[in-house]
Amino acid sequence: MDYSAHLDEALTRLHEEGRYRTFIDIERRRGQFPHAVWTRPNGSEQQITVWCGNDYLGMGQHPVVLSAMHEALEATGAGSGGTRNISGTTVYHKRLEAELADLHQKEAALLFTSAYIANDATLSTLPKLFPGLIIYSDALNHASMIEGIRRNGGAKRIFKHNDLEDLRAKLEADDPAAPKLIAFESVYSMDGDFGPIEAICDLAEEFGALTYLDEVHAVGMYGPRGGGVAERDRLLDRIDIVNGTLGKAFGVHGGYIAASEKMCDAIRSYAPGFIFTTSLPPVVAAGAAASVAHLKTDQELRDAHQTQAKILKTRLRGLGLPLIDHGSHIVPVIVGDPVHTKALSDMLLADHGIYVQPINFPTVPRGTERLRFTPSPVHGPREMDALVTALDALWSHCALNRADLTG
Amino acid sequence: MDYSAHLDEALTRLHEEGRYRTFIDIERRRGQFPHAVWTRPNGSEQQITVWCGNDYLGMGQHPVVLSAMHEALEATGAGSGGTRNISGTTVYHKRLEAELADLHQKEAALLFTSAYIANDATLSTLPKLFPGLIIYSDALNHASMIEGIRRNGGAKRIFKHNDLEDLRAKLEADDPAAPKLIAFESVYSMDGDFGPIEAICDLAEEFGALTYLDEVHAVGMYGPRGGGVAERDRLLDRIDIVNGTLGKAFGVHGGYIAASEKMCDAIRSYAPGFIFTTSLPPVVAAGAAASVAHLKTDQELRDAHQTQAKILKTRLRGLGLPLIDHGSHIVPVIVGDPVHTKALSDMLLADHGIYVQPINFPTVPRGTERLRFTPSPVHGPREMDALVTALDALWSHCALNRADLTG
Ligand SMILES: Cc1ncc(COP(=O)(O)O)c(C=O)c1O
Ligand SMILES: Cc1ncc(COP(=O)(O)O)c(C=O)c1O
Repeated sequence: MDYSAHLDEALTRLHEEGRYRTFIDIERRRGQFPHAVWTRPNGSEQQITVWCGNDYLGMGQHPVVLSAMHEALEATGAGSGGTRNISGTTVYHKRLEAELADLHQKEAALLFTSAYIANDATLSTLPKLFPGLIIYSDALNHASMIEGIRRNGGAKRIFKHNDLEDLRAKLEADDPAAPKLIAFESVYSMDGDFGPIEAICDLAEEFGALTYLDEVHAVGMYGPRGGGVAERDRLLDRIDIVNGTLGKAFGVHGGYIAASEKMCDAIRSYAPGFIFTTSLPPVVAAGAAASVAHLKTDQELRDAHQTQAKILKTRLRGLGLPLIDHGSHIVPVIVGDPVHTKALSDMLLADHGIYVQPINFPTVPRGTERLRFTPSPVHGPREMDALVTALDALWSHCALNRADLTG
Repeated sequence: MDYSAHLDEALTRLHEEGRYRTFIDIERRRGQFPHAVWTRPNGSEQQITVWCGNDYLGMGQHPVVLSAMHEALEATGAGSGGTRNISGTTVYHKRLEAELADLHQKEAALLFTSAYIANDATLSTLPKLFPGLIIYSDALNHASMIEGIRRNGGAKRIFKHNDLEDLRAKLEADDPAAPKLIAFESVYSMDGDFGPIEAICDLAEEFGALTYLDEVHAVGMYGPRGGGVAERDRLLDRIDIVNGTLGKAFGVHGGYIAASEKMCDAIRSYAPGFIFTTSLPPVVAAGAAASVAHLKTDQELRDAHQTQAKILKTRLRGLGLPLIDHGSHIVPVIVGDPVHTKALSDMLLADHGIYVQPINFPTVPRGTERLRFTPSPVHGPREMDALVTALDALWSHCALNRADLTG
């Protein structure tokens, strides 16, 4: 058995399709984000501006977060030293869970080591709790939801992205007595479009289904206290399970669900991905709790974030770049070919010190390869000018399409 | 559809079987571990000694680890702000991966957010790389390996725990041309017994199988540089993929595999659990790297650890407690009933300030419910005396069996 040849084959496939990923080695400097230092493969360094991070609000360098972390490190040390059940539950974890339950106006919240595992573990455990459960899953749901839904081999129906007719048809086709769950997102991170939360909740009510909403790209950023789009739209009480991350707008790490006391208790008790793993370090929980608490009141930061996104979109649209705009904070520019996208990204980095990672299949469908910009309140006018000028020059240089893709 | 009734049912089942888990809320005080503070459900506090943590060497409070973390926090901030591919690769991650590759004398290492996800993601991705792969899995493998092996629906054979005859029979029964992988552990954490690494490597060689070794409960603690039991036994070059955690003996958080450059590159490129999640915070990577580097030279700490385990086992054996002893650092005392185990744990905590979590099904087989003690170099003679005295008293008080279970 030639294992090495199989590995070569798998890797060659990626190279041939132009979607072999090269990680860019960067180091943020606290307080100077979005500026960072890129260490080239040869060891030399270059100053760059990060335009593709998901620390959407710059909370990863916020003094409130950092001082909470320094303090916890001094008070309690590094790791938790155990799973949640075996010596790994601390006051830091409990405080954060209370903060999150309050954020989403739910009875309880349950921490996981990431939102990936929160999705995977929760969605794969629900069919154990509700035998015969049918999961209705939006076609563009994140990989972590897909993995969770597929894992157990339970019944699933994939409905067309944001397509209420298709969802209704699929709900109608199934046994009315079967337990059901609709799993979707509030902000789809690669196009930046919103899920039709209210309409899906209406359908869920009509068909007696539970609702599962991934707010990973919305928590901290939408809603008067950063509770996400469901909070903004006053729909929190219609969502049975909210999923969120502590690693994007909250700037730290980890993930969670928020739901009823009973639901959290059952997932806590039955999900291997929750039970059999070391709990988050207290220092991470402390930083995340400080961030969540801070963003409950800092509406100014949320407003600045949205303003930045609007300015960037207006300016890119002014250049006629093929922008997707659904009114969210995410600014995708479609290139449509993995090799071109990578070449553009390479030129932006090497020639302009602008870092935006190419987004290729399987993260987005083939033919929609893109550059995905994430403006934040800490990107100033100078950074914005530099980006717009560079893109304008490159688009001309490469004779790329300037048609706007959206209506 | 009455979802709430289903949740009640699932939870009632646990209560009835006496295996509903109540988390004990503890707070370690840096520098004072294994001492900690227990916050009771009513909010009052009690000083306790932790006897069930997996911070086996006390590295979670080691100055080398803490100062590396403070420094990284100051230098770079809280979270990484992205997946490894999209702005989340930093010099901290690269340094830690280099440290780990060196630890296991492999060409490369790949970080995951936990060893749970490292097992799950790697084992579920291997069949994509080696079509037709058959995975031979030890019956007592950890939940994370089981989940990874089951996820893809690929071919698997469960061999009896540590049973080379059974493994051989299963290997012989399959097509000699099929790609194969044997997945096992070096230290099984609930009994503390060792996997027969050399004999399994011999079988792997004979049948042309890859070897996958989980060293989660061995890294940092065994081998002249803390490379695990495979390092101790000079078998590192016969293991194709090593899995380890940064959250137990290394005292921080996260997990990894170490393997050939090509293997790591292929897993990096194809495993959703690696690709689609925010990378570990740089501060966590910095702490872990410091811990791994430190333990490459601190043999004294490893020796003290083993000595502590020997002393505790000798003393418990002296009392005739039903101890399992396979010569490792883990000290399980079998109670054999979930309700008794929980009662003993409750009495130890409330009356003696000794915290050892009851270990019930599904973590261990029913009928083998136990208290699992993890002595460390930071447990002094005073703590040891208190534990032994308390156990002696409780065993008499509850008229429990004192027969030694092992030969
Ligand atoms: C054998 C084994 N493998 C893997 C894991 C998972 O490690 P982590 O806590 O880093 O997720 C554990 C325990 O948590 C374990 O006992
Ligand atoms: C929609 C969505 N859900 C879940 C996740 C996983 O979150 P985490 O990074 O906390 O694992 C991500 C991205 O990483 C995401 O984009």
